[in-house]
Parts: sequence; C-alpha cells; structure tokens
Amino acid sequence: MASEFRIDKTRLLKDLEAFTSLGRIEGKEGMYRMAFTSEEELSRRWLIDSAEKAGLACREDGARNIFVRLGSWDESAVATGSHIDSVPAGGHLDGALGVIAGFECLRRLKELNIDLRCPVELIAFTDEEGRYGSMLGSRAICGKHTRDELVEAVNVDGERLDTALARFDRSVDSVLSASRSSSDYKAFVELHIEQGPVLDKGNHQIGVVTDIVGLFRWRAVLIGEANHAGTTPMNVRKDAFAGLVEFASNIENILDTLGSEHSRATIGKVENIPGAMGVVPAETHFSMDVRDPCSSTLKSIQSALEEKLNMVAKKRGLDARVETVGELEPVKCDERLQFAIERASNNLQLESLKLPSGAAHDAQTMASLTDVAMIFIPSSQGLSHSPFEHSHDRDIENGTNVLLNTLAQLVSS
Amino acid sequence: MASEFRIDKTRLLKDLEAFTSLGRIEGKEGMYRMAFTSEEELSRRWLIDSAEKAGLACREDGARNIFVRLGSWDESAVATGSHIDSVPAGGHLDGALGVIAGFECLRRLKELNIDLRCPVELIAFTDEEGRYGSMLGSRAICGKHTRDELVEAVNVDGERLDTALARFDRSVDSVLSASRSSSDYKAFVELHIEQGPVLDKGNHQIGVVTDIVGLFRWRAVLIGEANHAGTTPMNVRKDAFAGLVEFASNIENILDTLGSEHSRATIGKVENIPGAMGVVPAETHFSMDVRDPCSSTLKSIQSALEEKLNMVAKKRGLDARVETVGELEPVKCDERLQFAIERASNNLQLESLKLPSGAAHDAQTMASLTDVAMIFIPSSQGLSHSPFEHSHDRDIENGTNVLLNTLAQLVSS
Repeated sequence: MASEFRIDKTRLLKDLEAFTSLGRIEGKEGMYRMAFTSEEELSRRWLIDSAEKAGLACREDGARNIFVRLGSWDESAVATGSHIDSVPAGGHLDGALGVIAGFECLRRLKELNIDLRCPVELIAFTDEEGRYGSMLGSRAICGKHTRDELVEAVNVDGERLDTALARFDRSVDSVLSASRSSSDYKAFVELHIEQGPVLDKGNHQIGVVTDIVGLFRWRAVLIGEANHAGTTPMNVRKDAFAGLVEFASNIENILDTLGSEHSRATIGKVENIPGAMGVVPAETHFSMDVRDPCSSTLKSIQSALEEKLNMVAKKRGLDARVETVGELEPVKCDERLQFAIERASNNLQLESLKLPSGAAHDAQTMASLTDVAMIFIPSSQGLSHSPFEHSHDRDIENGTNVLLNTLAQLVSS
Repeated sequence: MASEFRIDKTRLLKDLEAFTSLGRIEGKEGMYRMAFTSEEELSRRWLIDSAEKAGLACREDGARNIFVRLGSWDESAVATGSHIDSVPAGGHLDGALGVIAGFECLRRLKELNIDLRCPVELIAFTDEEGRYGSMLGSRAICGKHTRDELVEAVNVDGERLDTALARFDRSVDSVLSASRSSSDYKAFVELHIEQGPVLDKGNHQIGVVTDIVGLFRWRAVLIGEANHAGTTPMNVRKDAFAGLVEFASNIENILDTLGSEHSRATIGKVENIPGAMGVVPAETHFSMDVRDPCSSTLKSIQSALEEKLNMVAKKRGLDARVETVGELEPVKCDERLQFAIERASNNLQLESLKLPSGAAHDAQTMASLTDVAMIFIPSSQGLSHSPFEHSHDRDIENGTNVLLNTLAQLVSS
C-alpha cells in the first residue's frame, strides 16, 4: 500500500478564503467572478502570483487559460484543475475549489519532494459557466471552436466576445491558437462539488464519478391561434399552452419507460403569447433540458419526446417547431483513474460512492484530448448556482486529500 | 302579426364608417378608442352632435355615460346601447355596433312617428373594456362601485382613474352619483357582435342570447424549489411547473365531467421563476379564466379545480396559492325579451339561434337594474379584439332591423 499524503488544511482554507474575497461585490450575496470581469482578473492575478511565490511555473494561453506546472513544460503531464469563473450570485466553491485544491496539491507534491515520473499541471479554465458560450477555455484547449462561432459570440448584455478578449490583449485568433494535442496530457482529474443532493443525503464522503451526463436542449414553440377565452368553444380552440400541457404530462412517463435512474428532464422557461388572462394562447415558447449518462438512452428519450410533441401538435391543430440549442455527448470516466480515486479514498479511510455527474464540466470537454476522471465532495442540500451553496471544511479537506493521493499515484514512479 | 319596420341601411353604414374613422390612429391597424383618450372623446362628440341634429335629447352623467332619448326623461324607459370604447388594436364593431345601431333605431322610431307607450333610450357606456377596471359606466349606473375601488383604480400605464376623470371635469364622487334606480328602466336590449364562431360556422343570421356566462378568474402560483436541472434527481425535485402541468392536464377532463357544452377554461398567462433553461422552476405563476352560463355548474368546476390543484401541490411538495381576481355571476336573459327578439327575427324572415354569450357585456351588469336581453350577429371566424374582427354588412343590417322591431314591440301600445 502507498503511504497517504496529507494536504495543509489550514493553508488550503486560508487560500480559499482569500480567493473568495476577490470574487465578491460589496453589498451583494454570493460570487460575481464572471469571466472577463475585474473580479475574475483579480482572482487570476492572485493565482499566478501565489503560484510563482510557491516556486511553480505559470503560463497563460490565447484563451486566457492559466497553467501552473510542477516539472518540465516539454513532457506530457498529468493535469488537474477546474474553472475560477462563477455565475452571477453563484457559490464560492463551484469551480474555484478544483483550482485552489489543485494548487495546494502541486505545492504539497513539491514540498514532499517525491520523484515525479511526469510533470503535474494545474489548469484554471476560462469561462466554464458560458458567459460568452459554454466552456470557452477547455473547448479552446481541445480545438473545438470554429472561427465563426467565436466571432458571433456575445454575452447577455450584447458585448461581443472579441471586444471582451481585446480588453485583455487577446483575440478570436489567439483563442483558436490555444488548442493542444493529446500527446500533451496523460490524464485529467477534476475535483468539484457535487452540485446535487446524492452524497449529502446519503452521508457519503467522496463521489467517484463514473460518467458525465450527455444532454440536449431545445428552444421550442407550439403555434396555435389566439381567441377569446369566453366565446371560443373548447373543441374549436387551437390552444398552444394546452398543447404544451398535454405534451409535458407525458415526460415523466417517457423517462420512467425509456430512461434510467439518472435521466432528467426540465422545462425551465415558458412564455405564452399574447399571455393575457382572457385570451387563448396563440403561441407557447418553452425550453427543454434533458440529460442521461448513456448516449443511446438519451437518443431514445429524444425520439420519444419529438414523437409525442408532434403527435400532440397534430391532434390539436398546432404547429410544433423545435430548435436544438445545445448538445453534449455523455463521457465515460476512465476506469483506471476511477480506480486510483477509489484507492486513494480507501487508503484515507474515506467512504466513496460511484455516481454519474448530472452537471457538465470542463472534464467532459477534456475527454476528447485525454483520459478524464472526477472527484466529487458533498454539496449541502445539493444547492448550487446560489449564494447558499456550501460544503463543509472537512469535506473540502477530504476531497483535496483524495486529489493529492490520486495525483501522487499517477505521477510517482 | 306586427308589420315589420326597416332601418335605413345606407345611413347606418355611413354612420358606422364615419364613427370608425374617429377611432383610428394613422399608421396603425385596428381601433384605438380606449376610454379617456382623445379618440374616444371625438367619437363621443360625434354621437352627441349627431343625435342633437336628429332632434334627439342628450345627457351625460358623472361617469361619462351618454344617454340619448326619444320621449320624456321623466318616465321609465326601454333602453338599448353598448359601449364605444375599444381595446387597443381592437375591432370597429365591438361595442360601437350597438351604439350606432341603437342611434339608427331611435331616429327611425322618431321618423316612423309611432305611438310610444314609454320612452326609448340609447346608452353609450363608459369603459366597458376595463381600461381603469371593468365596465366602469354600467357599474356606475347600477351603483356597483365602492369609493375605495374607484380611488385605487389605475390603468396599465399607472394613471389613476381620478386623474383621467379630472381631465373631463369628472371625479370619483361624480361616478358614484351616476347610480340609477330600477324604476328608471323597463328593459335593456343590447345588440353586439358574437365575438365567437358559433353563428358564423353554423350559418345562422341572428343569435338570441339565453344567458351571459358567469366567470371566475384566478391569479395563482405554485411554489417549489429551484434546483440544478442536471444534478437533481426527478424524485427529489419540487418542480413548480411540473405541478402546473399535472394540474392543467386534468382541466379538460373536469370540464367534460362536471361542465356543460358551454364551459370554458383558459390558462392565458404563465411565468416560471427563475425561468432559466438549466434550472428547475421554483415558482410557476399562472392565470385561469373559467366560464359557464350556470352558476351551480361554475361552482362545481371551481371546487374540482381547487381540489385538484391542492392535491397535486400536496403530492409534489409544492405550496399552492390562489387569488380570485374576478368573479361575475351568470345572468339569464329575460324570456319575454328573448321571445320579442325571436318574433322580430321570424317576422323579418331571419333564422335565429338561441345561444349563451361567452363574453361579458354591459347587459350583464344592467341585469341588476332591469330585465335584459342581447341580440348577436355573426363574427367572421369568431375573431374579436383584433383588427381582423369583421361582420358582413348584410348581418349588420339584419341585426339592426331585429333591434328596431324588438324595440318597436316593447314600446308600441
């Protein structure tokens, strides 16, 4: 058995506290470290300065990803990391935990002075939360962007990505130049809060992620006919919202029949037009977000939902239009890496649970470049993307110790 | 058999055209004769001037209702009329038809010089469409307002009713002073377009309204819990919109079981909070508009809907809150008046259909003061509250002739 290493808990929590303070806006709850803001820039500077002070080498690429390395830049590395950006009013651990914990692990490995078979790298990815389009940094590293997509990207306030990039001496072309090859990495292991209730409710200490769910997202509309709510008999109406109700009342059944225990379907946004109390809705616009860790399961759910929507539309004289606005393939975490995480947990006498990730992560993108795995720690009540996001210090410590020992297994000769 | 009288079709259509032109805004489709606008004021002036030119007496009351009378002001009258205000981008006949046709009938009765057993009055009601609260004019006549309600009334732009009234030398107190007693009227007969598809689809010439539907309106909310759309298992969600879907999927069945062929239920407005694609809705706000011509049927539908909503909320761990924001009792049209309309139609060799009104009308309010009845003419495709509202000239002529002969029956000795 390998001996277990331990991170410096006091240093880790102090760093997390310092880092958190840089992402806050006075008078507001939660984090405001969105990509390309001054809060994010301050946090980035803190990471680079701290890493250099710790004697680690730093680089930034054309997509503003930050790389901190222990060992040579010329060899294929085992990497860890996550993102430092947050959603507006987000939590202080979503992303930042994986970066600050990764930094602690690199420092500890350096201090332990163990013999490295290969370099260890920390990556702080740019804009995972998708202020200008999802996972800008990890997609840049994996060469997933088209030039057109980057040129057209805008944030919710209408600012173009290239304008935001220019403020930091970057450009669409520099983002494209950030792509790396699979020979650059041996593995990528990401530590993250679960952002769901499974570990917390089950009193599990560590989550070993087996799969990262795939998803598809619809922006859909049912089109019928506006009519007077009092004078139009029920049987001659083309009520767009009644169509959505009939369609949506089948979703839970479709998941029960075709899905797995990990299937999810959500209608998050709904708008009726004209949206007046006394008018039968002419149009109902809605979003769908559907996820499952198995590609074929996801596809069969998608087909069943499309079929049901079209059937309901036909029956009710409505026109159904579906635009797929997001699609991610499920990713299987590498078995060898999962085993390393489990072994690290066991050696630390931490109880672990295998589970899929219901949220998308940079690790999902990185899977196109190298083997990936993820370590989860419990999120209190599963809360996420909220100022009330919380994980206990003990869980933060445990997760970071598991990351340290996993990396140690992978890099020690 | 009574001999049949005929209105002056050319004069009627010319008046309608002139009147319509006063309610338009250049460059916009449809009517903009909303209460307390300059378009409405111009139209009101036209009516008063035209009536006075025709030798008819005119009065206005403290609620800006206009009264045009043939005969003495001191005796109980048979009344007709409707409203001259429109919704924004409304049709040119909704309301205005009943006023202009009524004016034509009074002129014709005067020209025919028939012996009147009692006076005939035309009423042009203020703000039926409810810019500052529903049916301001007819509710004022029937003494239905409380002072507080009038003081608090505002339009969608936030203008207070008392501010609007002051522009026309009126006040909340003058509105309250407009109330009349049941001894002032013998009957009220309103001509209106159907605003529904029944007459048009069935090729009926005249509708004899049997009942005006009652309604209740809800502003309701289901409250659950916001959660991540990917990480939150289906069985631990408190998805407010999924609750609305389950509730609403029962509406058609509840109407089939407890309602009549005239029952209607509409969810016109829906809003999810936060309303984001990747977030399980924490709150779903929605409106309900439910109508039936029978008071007890309406009540049993209301109970069943409330029970179902509470059942679904309980099952899904949601909190259901319902605010009733509108309630109108169904009104039965007077049998004697219905018979007079049917006889007038028969004598004119027009085919009539008995049907309930699915829309609310001034006649519904006036029922608290006197016996009421309504004559409908077909609306092309049932379209209403739309620039595309349309009725054929032949139907306008037919309806006005039926009104004339109905009034003649009621007022001739």
